Amino acid sequence: MPTQFDPPSGTRDFLAREYESRERAFAQIRSVFSRYGFEPLATPAFERLDVLLGKYGEDGDKLIFKILRRGEHEQSGEADLALRYDLTVPLARVAAAYGSQLPTPYKRYAMGPVWRADRPGRGRFREFVQCDLDTLGSASSLADAEVMCAVHDVLTELGITDFRFLLNSRRVLAGLLEVFGVPTELGPGVLITLDKLDKLAPGEVSSELAARGLPPAKAAELVGALTAAGADEQIRDALKVSEEGAAGLDEVNRVLSLIAGQVPTSRVTFTPRMVRGLSYYTGPIWEVAASGVPGSIASGGRYDHLIAQLGGPDVPATGGSLGIERILLLLPPPESAPGRLDVAVTIMDERWAARSFAFAAAARSAGLRASVYLGASGKLGRQLKWASDAGARWALIHGSAEEEAGTVTVRDMTTGEQSSVPASALAGHLAELAAALPG
Amino acid sequence: MPTQFDPPSGTRDFLAREYESRERAFAQIRSVFSRYGFEPLATPAFERLDVLLGKYGEDGDKLIFKILRRGEHEQSGEADLALRYDLTVPLARVAAAYGSQLPTPYKRYAMGPVWRADRPGRGRFREFVQCDLDTLGSASSLADAEVMCAVHDVLTELGITDFRFLLNSRRVLAGLLEVFGVPTELGPGVLITLDKLDKLAPGEVSSELAARGLPPAKAAELVGALTAAGADEQIRDALKVSEEGAAGLDEVNRVLSLIAGQVPTSRVTFTPRMVRGLSYYTGPIWEVAASGVPGSIASGGRYDHLIAQLGGPDVPATGGSLGIERILLLLPPPESAPGRLDVAVTIMDERWAARSFAFAAAARSAGLRASVYLGASGKLGRQLKWASDAGARWALIHGSAEEEAGTVTVRDMTTGEQSSVPASALAGHLAELAAALPG
Repeated sequence: MPTQFDPPSGTRDFLAREYESRERAFAQIRSVFSRYGFEPLATPAFERLDVLLGKYGEDGDKLIFKILRRGEHEQSGEADLALRYDLTVPLARVAAAYGSQLPTPYKRYAMGPVWRADRPGRGRFREFVQCDLDTLGSASSLADAEVMCAVHDVLTELGITDFRFLLNSRRVLAGLLEVFGVPTELGPGVLITLDKLDKLAPGEVSSELAARGLPPAKAAELVGALTAAGADEQIRDALKVSEEGAAGLDEVNRVLSLIAGQVPTSRVTFTPRMVRGLSYYTGPIWEVAASGVPGSIASGGRYDHLIAQLGGPDVPATGGSLGIERILLLLPPPESAPGRLDVAVTIMDERWAARSFAFAAAARSAGLRASVYLGASGKLGRQLKWASDAGARWALIHGSAEEEAGTVTVRDMTTGEQSSVPASALAGHLAELAAALPG
Repeated sequence: MPTQFDPPSGTRDFLAREYESRERAFAQIRSVFSRYGFEPLATPAFERLDVLLGKYGEDGDKLIFKILRRGEHEQSGEADLALRYDLTVPLARVAAAYGSQLPTPYKRYAMGPVWRADRPGRGRFREFVQCDLDTLGSASSLADAEVMCAVHDVLTELGITDFRFLLNSRRVLAGLLEVFGVPTELGPGVLITLDKLDKLAPGEVSSELAARGLPPAKAAELVGALTAAGADEQIRDALKVSEEGAAGLDEVNRVLSLIAGQVPTSRVTFTPRMVRGLSYYTGPIWEVAASGVPGSIASGGRYDHLIAQLGGPDVPATGGSLGIERILLLLPPPESAPGRLDVAVTIMDERWAARSFAFAAAARSAGLRASVYLGASGKLGRQLKWASDAGARWALIHGSAEEEAGTVTVRDMTTGEQSSVPASALAGHLAELAAALPG
């Protein structure tokens, strides 16, 4: 039951444990991207409304969160700004704004929240993190292959092993349409229907193709060729008679040969029926399927004129996007909740609180996470309960006896063993404890 | 001149260099907070409008970015959501929502963008990062002192040395008003005026106090006491006759004694005239002044009932906020632009591009940042220019001669020296290069 204190529909609060496991994954991803020479870019949460509107089709526009004008203009009920809907339109704006200040090619990654007023559902949020890497300014297949290898490395370094790249090319698709004699005007619709081959039965897809105006025999033939055992080889043969198809095949083969040293062959499949919905792709296209997850966990491709269409310069471009939220669902949960503290320092007597406070500082100087007890109870049991709840590995106890003797009692919270350490030797002792900690 | 490609007014794009220097500072800050046992919290960019409205006074409400309702409701011109204005109201909501799931006390930090529709100006943005740390559920001065020590450590670890804490207590201020016989109803206004003592001349402040209804002699006496040389001691004496004032002094003294071991005495000053504008403070209050920066770079204090006023549970609370954007301005710029690459791999012949591609992968396996040349030129000079622009330490050159000999030419981009390495020995050679890199 949502309460008035829940975050807005489709958004989430991240408390420490979840926040930290997400941040760990994000850091691993950034590290891979950086190793490939991609550099970070961060843009504002909102853009001017006109920068965003009309870039995502009518359905997309409806999902844009618009920001009301302010001050005297608020009454107009009009919006002038909007939350970013993806990271690609801001990239196009940046490419236009900073042009020659950017390296050529411009290899950048961006990782941050985007907002879509979609109906929230399982794994579908209104605020979610997107993670893109793109290379602007290179027409080379090397750039396509590089993006795929980077995505491969991200997935394996996150510990995901059971996944597979489906690779195709827009030019292969164009060749297919040509080879099977699909009339040009039916092309886009036919591709949309073929894209459903992973969800619908072949017969259903054939019927839908026929409904689009393709002769039923032709529709059955096309679907048969794409779904037959050994379809790959048949299609390769068929494509040879089309110039565009042959060029598309070359493109696919080139990417396959480039990534062969890094992506195991079992993890890539040439998939001629794979369309990728978005019409802006112009060359190689790919998506990553993982077992146990519907849809893809990453996808991308070459989109040579999109940046210009989005208001940027007309540069060749290729890139990929990680479905971070889905990928995070695949990761094993952390083995145990990491403690907040290494050292918990009790306050047994207000008179000597400053001494305990200084002990905590000494622990921090040794590189340990440390805090004094901030509650009101003077009872040791209560304070040790707090230390235990905080996951502390050690408690430092300093009461009247210790104050008189000039010592601190160091309690191992795992074994319950206690030892007495002269206050003057505490710093050295803490350094030894710090050295014994894993990591 | 702003162009259509600039980010919206008051917001910024962060390209690689600036992004990375900001992230480095953020990571250092997180590390200090974590060492004190503060845990992270992240909340959505927007909240329901009713959660935000009415929490910041009338002027604050005007600065809230409101989000239009969507779908059929868009026409209404009404808003139902709004971008967060600070990190404190979301904290209150989280405290209410997760209550018993949170540790007691709940020590959390939050670092992230907030949005205010303020007039943009030098160092004043509409999207800027806030960084808060707060302890909910502890009435102890230890909690106040801990926050101040954490802020102190953050500043020194960032490399800022020339700063000073101004410390006071709301109860000292209440005592002052009592001792100087300021009528209760004039109290809040008098404090607002006294807060200007760091900007206006004493005479001007006295006049403003008189205008507020304080007898001119009384106003002059009060201002004189607060600005006299040795004001600290005089005020301490004067406060003794007020119960509230004496309690405030105790509070200040206790915090001073707790932090004494960690914050050098020269970096803290009891400042009885320091008010801190916000009326919600209930105990110790502090701000940090740094030379060369107007206003404060950090501030905070105890605010025992605010969380309840904001819709959360009624818990004692204390915290602080770092003026991150101002602090970042104080940091020295990075000594040189860090390169994007350690190893740049040329593509001298398309036929062997896959080999070059594999060399880059080998360099990454050795932990180096590496990329192949993605451009169209086959000229070595052009490719070395690219390698140099990317800040690469080494270039790997692989042309016909190398292909025939089964070698790679490794060029030191600093000295220009080249050596020939058998392709089979490249992995080991790269590992040696990686070991030679600093950091």
